[in-house]
Amino acid sequence: MTVDSRPLTEHTAHSAWLHDDAFAALGSRRVVVAGDGALTGTVAEEVAAATARFGGAFSRLEVGDGVSDAELVLTLSPPLVEPVETPMVSTGSTGEGTDESFRLTREAGAVVVQAASDAGLLHGLFHVVRLGEAAFDGPDADETHAPATDLRMLDHWDNVDVHPVMGQVERGYSGGSIFYDHGYVHADLSRVERYARLLAAVGINRVAINNVNVHTREARLLTEDLGDVVRVAAVFRRWGIRVHLSVSFASPITLGGLDTSDPLDQDVAHWWVRAAARVWDAIPDFGGFVVKADSEGQPGPFAYGRTHADGANMLAAAVEPYDGLIHWRAFVYDHKQDWRDRSTDRARAAYDHFHPLDGAFSDNVVLQVKYGPLDFQVREPLSPVLAAMPHTRVALELQVTQEYTGQQQHAVYLGPQWSQILRFRFWDASGGEGGSPTVADLATGRGKAVEDPGTGTWRKPAGGFAAVSNVGDDEFWTGHPFAQANLYAYGRLCWDPALDPGALLDEWAALTFPGTPSAVRDALHTVLDRSWETYEQYTSPLGVGFMVRPGHHYGPDVDGYEYTPWGTYHFADRDGIGVDRTVRTGTGYAGQYPAPWSAVYESPSTCPDELLLFFHHVPYTHVLQSGSTVVQHIYDSHFDGVARVEAMIGAWSEVSTLVDPHVSERVSERLAEQLRSATEWRDQVNTYFFRKSGIPDERGRRIY
Amino acid sequence: MTVDSRPLTEHTAHSAWLHDDAFAALGSRRVVVAGDGALTGTVAEEVAAATARFGGAFSRLEVGDGVSDAELVLTLSPPLVEPVETPMVSTGSTGEGTDESFRLTREAGAVVVQAASDAGLLHGLFHVVRLGEAAFDGPDADETHAPATDLRMLDHWDNVDVHPVMGQVERGYSGGSIFYDHGYVHADLSRVERYARLLAAVGINRVAINNVNVHTREARLLTEDLGDVVRVAAVFRRWGIRVHLSVSFASPITLGGLDTSDPLDQDVAHWWVRAAARVWDAIPDFGGFVVKADSEGQPGPFAYGRTHADGANMLAAAVEPYDGLIHWRAFVYDHKQDWRDRSTDRARAAYDHFHPLDGAFSDNVVLQVKYGPLDFQVREPLSPVLAAMPHTRVALELQVTQEYTGQQQHAVYLGPQWSQILRFRFWDASGGEGGSPTVADLATGRGKAVEDPGTGTWRKPAGGFAAVSNVGDDEFWTGHPFAQANLYAYGRLCWDPALDPGALLDEWAALTFPGTPSAVRDALHTVLDRSWETYEQYTSPLGVGFMVRPGHHYGPDVDGYEYTPWGTYHFADRDGIGVDRTVRTGTGYAGQYPAPWSAVYESPSTCPDELLLFFHHVPYTHVLQSGSTVVQHIYDSHFDGVARVEAMIGAWSEVSTLVDPHVSERVSERLAEQLRSATEWRDQVNTYFFRKSGIPDERGRRIY
Repeated sequence: MTVDSRPLTEHTAHSAWLHDDAFAALGSRRVVVAGDGALTGTVAEEVAAATARFGGAFSRLEVGDGVSDAELVLTLSPPLVEPVETPMVSTGSTGEGTDESFRLTREAGAVVVQAASDAGLLHGLFHVVRLGEAAFDGPDADETHAPATDLRMLDHWDNVDVHPVMGQVERGYSGGSIFYDHGYVHADLSRVERYARLLAAVGINRVAINNVNVHTREARLLTEDLGDVVRVAAVFRRWGIRVHLSVSFASPITLGGLDTSDPLDQDVAHWWVRAAARVWDAIPDFGGFVVKADSEGQPGPFAYGRTHADGANMLAAAVEPYDGLIHWRAFVYDHKQDWRDRSTDRARAAYDHFHPLDGAFSDNVVLQVKYGPLDFQVREPLSPVLAAMPHTRVALELQVTQEYTGQQQHAVYLGPQWSQILRFRFWDASGGEGGSPTVADLATGRGKAVEDPGTGTWRKPAGGFAAVSNVGDDEFWTGHPFAQANLYAYGRLCWDPALDPGALLDEWAALTFPGTPSAVRDALHTVLDRSWETYEQYTSPLGVGFMVRPGHHYGPDVDGYEYTPWGTYHFADRDGIGVDRTVRTGTGYAGQYPAPWSAVYESPSTCPDELLLFFHHVPYTHVLQSGSTVVQHIYDSHFDGVARVEAMIGAWSEVSTLVDPHVSERVSERLAEQLRSATEWRDQVNTYFFRKSGIPDERGRRIY
Repeated sequence: MTVDSRPLTEHTAHSAWLHDDAFAALGSRRVVVAGDGALTGTVAEEVAAATARFGGAFSRLEVGDGVSDAELVLTLSPPLVEPVETPMVSTGSTGEGTDESFRLTREAGAVVVQAASDAGLLHGLFHVVRLGEAAFDGPDADETHAPATDLRMLDHWDNVDVHPVMGQVERGYSGGSIFYDHGYVHADLSRVERYARLLAAVGINRVAINNVNVHTREARLLTEDLGDVVRVAAVFRRWGIRVHLSVSFASPITLGGLDTSDPLDQDVAHWWVRAAARVWDAIPDFGGFVVKADSEGQPGPFAYGRTHADGANMLAAAVEPYDGLIHWRAFVYDHKQDWRDRSTDRARAAYDHFHPLDGAFSDNVVLQVKYGPLDFQVREPLSPVLAAMPHTRVALELQVTQEYTGQQQHAVYLGPQWSQILRFRFWDASGGEGGSPTVADLATGRGKAVEDPGTGTWRKPAGGFAAVSNVGDDEFWTGHPFAQANLYAYGRLCWDPALDPGALLDEWAALTFPGTPSAVRDALHTVLDRSWETYEQYTSPLGVGFMVRPGHHYGPDVDGYEYTPWGTYHFADRDGIGVDRTVRTGTGYAGQYPAPWSAVYESPSTCPDELLLFFHHVPYTHVLQSGSTVVQHIYDSHFDGVARVEAMIGAWSEVSTLVDPHVSERVSERLAEQLRSATEWRDQVNTYFFRKSGIPDERGRRIY
């Protein structure tokens, strides 16, 4: 490890969306901060620093003190703020979440931000920072801002020990871990502090700090190395962020010396009760546990003939006194499938496992569901589990780290994908406003209301959002500087899923590159706006997915997973390709959707082109809704995708000298790799299908 | 690491072909050992132990002492032994190798073994052990035994540090290393001592003790950790075995602090001179250095625009005063090839690099050439480099470790493959006795004689044999107990390449399982005799090779290497498969062979079936010399191969209770895995080609 490759100092870590200059509007004004609480102190420190830098004035007052001639007042004043109803989601079976909302009033250029909690005040501060001069220039206003959900979480797949295969950060493409280094928690947590500040500025309020695949060393964070977690939690606390731990379901055995981790065994339950008591004793605002059980080799309740509700509820009982949460992942499938067995369909697995358990989970269990039925592919249909659990708190899980979308070597802005996911309506394909609930509604509880069996009152079982972080100790935090935009957009969409991803790109660019010419912003749009679609074009076609190199998942390998136990097949032969998941002749997966989607997906004539091969096995000569054939679409989209990358490079090269040379150099280097890789994808995929189909490109382009 | 999985103690390591009972014939007799020298001491210890165990008598005498009533005399008596001419190969530019020959006379049941050196006496001892009662029962005789070459080497690809990807032993399938454990040389070298004894018993006399891919930690064996090598060398010395080290060509930079490793740089040359001086100072009988240069990322002379002769000769000069050798590997090719570039052919690379350098290497450089042009596949044509270097000492490199032949999970006896290789004649396809030199002749110098440019005398430039060991700290040494037979056969074939592999199997079985019923021996033959051919049947067809999972190389993946930079392609499309390596329309590789093979390989009508796809791209409907089509051959051979594994299991199950249950259990477990894996191979390969060709099996068997 060299300082160059893994910089950890304040000097070299990029400021991301908290460039000093992003504080100019606020910092040049007369600002008053009033209130108490730790986070109000954080707000005051931010304001003090900004006003010192930009020549404004800062006063810290008690609430209720007279305020004169202030241009901005940030005040903790519960009585002034209307209770916000919509986003309130219980974090425990009985307790209520913190109200993180704030009210902003602007009158003749004087702005007052009022919040019921100091967390709300912190969000209000960063709202003003985001607006810049517009915070003060705008017309008179009186707005209340509240997050769509109080569960806005990032999961880190960081290992304490360097894993021999997966490294320090599993699926991490941004250097080492900001938390750990070869078996230890960093002595210097200043990088974590800077990270927490970035997260607070986009509204993230929960962080799980270790890999869901819990190895030996990592398991001990729960017990003997809890002191390290205390240190990390203290850093995040200053920024309104609660810490969670991933735990191993086998902990009673591996850590506790018991001979079982059967969730119905009393000793096991008691072991967890004691473990939880110790954790919350040390960290009173601890968030809870994340569990990957019976999934890809991780231990779980199946070993004891118990259901996942048995497993989750046992843990839930242990953390319930502290309003703790259990994030229970729905990523359960047979990863030792036989490719010869066509009756098993991995896509069905989560629904088959969890739908029968709807209503059986305790109130403080959040079922964490990947957006698609497989695994974070560039294109999948939405997981039917999201729609199948009306009585369960379901969290939508996204992947900010670009495991299958270019590993932060490729510029791929995922905002549009997530926005499309969040706006998807399971019960109303037409998607009219005011129609059936969107995925965002399901995750935030707006579309769900069930009677509490105990009290007869109505509640909204919602699980909010979770996503896998893309951050490491890389100079730019995320490897590719533009991958910062993904983390930014994820946080902002958690706060408000209705935000426009293009507008979020503007927000991010204005904060990250303040004062740069509009040409740079235009170039960023040219590079990023359609980059998700571009990546889809030059990689796997028509929703078929998984044509990646096994293991590391970078680069093309059309047959890479075809004859493996992983359940991700395309069944390409000399005549056609795709997976028949229809009810009529296939695995029946399409039937897991409510109407109208079950019918839409069932027929190749109505199934959207981009998902055709996910649901149907069709000949290469099948004509798409676009009018092209499958094989010609493969050729066209792959040639087009590479041409688009070339255009991205052209657009960037025109402005690259206008930004920090450090950023520019890294971006140029990554774009070159993206072009190399996209070309490799194009040529391998096209060659594979030409060799298989024997059908030439109708435009006669070069296929090897 | 648990004791169970990595047993290191004397109690648990299997006796292999030195079962105590194998010494019964000798041990029950009156034996005299006469002579001095360290190895005579070793011989005396062996005899003393055996006679004590079996009730014989042992006397140690001076040479020339009167011997009465001895049934066996082992005596160091140079005057009694005729100088042996044939196998003598210079080990240095001027020095002569040790004469390891011995003379055995038998008269009325009294046996005398005489040797010119104590090494010869040790070989004579183990010869008598191998013969058992036949040593004494046979008719009167007077035989001289001498090794075919004095370079009979085993290379260990053991790492001192555990490599994050390759582990403790690269391509090792037998547990950990007998030498190293997580960064250190074992304190207890008793396992190495037992290993050295086993090697001595089959005639191996040189061992390279570290991986040819020399990583940071391993490089230091040459310098600061030389003390560890001294310890290991002391163990091997007692058994007549010299130790070699693999070294990094970049050592002057990485260890010496120089800024170059240019072989023509004087400082570099002097650094190596000093390094060699220190090594031979510490280990006077040190063997020399093994170098993998400009190969798969290892440093080499190309970086400085120098030839491999420049590189090797610079090192050769440094070790020449000590009769040291440089084993320089010919495994040089572009491992970052573009699969789209059909003009580059990895198979050509070694010849193209080295043929122009014939005659340019110093006399103490051995060019170590893998048997085939690619990489130890189950079937390859012989490397044309073996025939293209008449003025160079060429060693034939084999792979005892089963990297591509089942990784010691599959019972694959490689003796028949090696025997076929050794008997191959480059200039006389008909293979008549007394014809052109065999590969064995080329490696032992019998077929080569060139005038020494300095002295005008004639010499025989030969490099002998080298092979990659299959041994680790596994209880059975080799993972699969039957894989011991490969190590046994390799050693014996080095001594005498004309030995019959079936007879060697009998030798091994008699020594390893002494006294077991003949049914066991019959079953061993049923399991092993055709096991190489069986493995070929159910894996990659007709010489095409490399249809393995990338990286670890276990299990099928037909397209696994097809679009990679490794240069190992099959070019299968919907119409046909194979690589056109002809002169007329292909890469020209066939032209690297002398006549008649160049012509035989050039035409698909004369090319042997088993190599057809190595040399030709043909339609699936091409009719083989066997009368079958290519695709039907693929189906048939894969079904047949699995059926043969089932028959192997049947044969073994009938005798499994007749052998040590420990052995039996391990063998049964491995055979079950072999059947599972063979079935997986069959089904994937058949499915792949059915999907691609669309041609059904003419016998209607199940293809998925």
